[in-house]
Amino acid sequence: MHPIPPGTRDVLPDEMLELRSITERLRGTFESAGYGEVWTPLLEYEEVLRTGDEAAAGAGYRMFDEGGQVLALRSDMTIPIGRLVATRLADTGEPLRLCYVAHAYRAVGHGSGQQSEFLQAGLELIGVEGEDGEAEVIELTLAALDAAGLARHRIGLGDGALYRTLLADLEVPPHRHGDLLERLSMRDLVGLELLVDGLGLARDARDMLVALPALRGGAEIFDQVDGPARGALEGLRTLHAALADRGVADRVILDLGLVRTLGYYTGAVYEVYDPAVGFTLGGGGRYDELIGRFGAPRPACGIALDVQRVHIAQAAEEGLR
Amino acid sequence: MHPIPPGTRDVLPDEMLELRSITERLRGTFESAGYGEVWTPLLEYEEVLRTGDEAAAGAGYRMFDEGGQVLALRSDMTIPIGRLVATRLADTGEPLRLCYVAHAYRAVGHGSGQQSEFLQAGLELIGVEGEDGEAEVIELTLAALDAAGLARHRIGLGDGALYRTLLADLEVPPHRHGDLLERLSMRDLVGLELLVDGLGLARDARDMLVALPALRGGAEIFDQVDGPARGALEGLRTLHAALADRGVADRVILDLGLVRTLGYYTGAVYEVYDPAVGFTLGGGGRYDELIGRFGAPRPACGIALDVQRVHIAQAAEEGLR
Repeated sequence: MHPIPPGTRDVLPDEMLELRSITERLRGTFESAGYGEVWTPLLEYEEVLRTGDEAAAGAGYRMFDEGGQVLALRSDMTIPIGRLVATRLADTGEPLRLCYVAHAYRAVGHGSGQQSEFLQAGLELIGVEGEDGEAEVIELTLAALDAAGLARHRIGLGDGALYRTLLADLEVPPHRHGDLLERLSMRDLVGLELLVDGLGLARDARDMLVALPALRGGAEIFDQVDGPARGALEGLRTLHAALADRGVADRVILDLGLVRTLGYYTGAVYEVYDPAVGFTLGGGGRYDELIGRFGAPRPACGIALDVQRVHIAQAAEEGLR
Repeated sequence: MHPIPPGTRDVLPDEMLELRSITERLRGTFESAGYGEVWTPLLEYEEVLRTGDEAAAGAGYRMFDEGGQVLALRSDMTIPIGRLVATRLADTGEPLRLCYVAHAYRAVGHGSGQQSEFLQAGLELIGVEGEDGEAEVIELTLAALDAAGLARHRIGLGDGALYRTLLADLEVPPHRHGDLLERLSMRDLVGLELLVDGLGLARDARDMLVALPALRGGAEIFDQVDGPARGALEGLRTLHAALADRGVADRVILDLGLVRTLGYYTGAVYEVYDPAVGFTLGGGGRYDELIGRFGAPRPACGIALDVQRVHIAQAAEEGLR
């Protein structure tokens, strides 16, 4: 009787109040730190989204406008904000701090059990290079979730470029990178090992490619790495030191196997966890090339939180107390 | 360079803060009066929207899902809330007071200059019949706009069924109603007069059909009507008295030519004006049959405000001060 599309839901007043309390606290934290809220249209030309990231554009709902052009529902806010920054905000030389509370959409099939409509709260820091930018975003994410009532949340921190850099350093042919990175992004370390074994590498190189993605923990993991990987980890080491300076390193879990699937990440990548629930609450990373696809290049990093998941984690934490 | 679809816009932080200040005040007023905020999915099955109102479903962006069913972006919140009330909230015998702050979408052509993406703040009062319901909605709308910083706003009040009732009473053949109501909804009183002249009615009846839609003002207009129209105005007269009891009748302009175009209105209809701007800020009315199309019938009325237009009116009022 009068169904709603798969992956969507009606939200009644009691839950709505709780969700709004979360979005107001997240946004309040972002705004206090100088992040200004923006809105971009729900519908974008698919070609524009595709300019930002091929895979992201394909993930969304699509339709034709009356002139035959393909429109798509945004599947995240990072690409539209990249477009906005490269067009209307291109003349701003200073760093830009932008945030949003908005829905994003991904087409899902019947019975998949996946959400298709996501309420996201996120931020984008544009024009700040390297660990200063990332440390600010990570610290602010932790603080925003503190404000939203979580107590046990942690940030998983990896380097989205690390494995690609190592594969290039080891002269693994580029056409074999895709399968390896796919196994890695699925956290399928057994499948990854099988593929690495098939590469015909020297023992040391083979062991490094297999062992590295399993390294997870605090700064001690840097001591467990030597050889060519040591140099490739320099960025992550610097960032970890910056996080220690800000007093939040103990809430960050280094994870050398972490790879986010979106194609626009170029450096550090993060995911948000809460031990009370078995799913990530959000994620992000550095995307220094995205804005340049729309105009003048600018370094940038950001993060998006799934508000409904934050809400579930909040309830789960309360249940544990 | 990287255009956005016609009728949409990016909103930058300064404006966003102002829009949010308006939505928070509108919602604050609604919630203080016992209205609970709800969210419904942006995408609905077109067939479901069509169950609510044929024309509303056709107004929106449409696409196919992977199973070949047609999805549509909601073109208002009243129909989705009607669906929600008739399904998940069907067991509630008591009146329901629901509100929302959400975007609605209508497909527009290139160069039409019309908006396709609307931020609406609105409310729906379900289960309260007659003038009590309408007076509550009108009083609350005035108060919400007071809170949002407007001072000169007025409500135009008409009866969406009035002209149809008169045409039926005068035995005008039903196939001629459509053209007449269309002229009326366009406020084309000259075109209306030409059509009425072609109906071959007696002089009195002809004069009434021509003169009535031009009547606009306070309670004095009731004295300017006699004959069959007098009885048809009884509902509006009772409502005006209820508004006087609530002390807001002087902010309401009776308008016997007011017809809202949406097909689901069954009684009183309202529009919100501000003399500082030349467009309506929103509108609504009574829709006693909509919920019954999804399940058990319940009387209902509501109103939706266009937040961006309220913002423009607010700035225009400040300019006049």
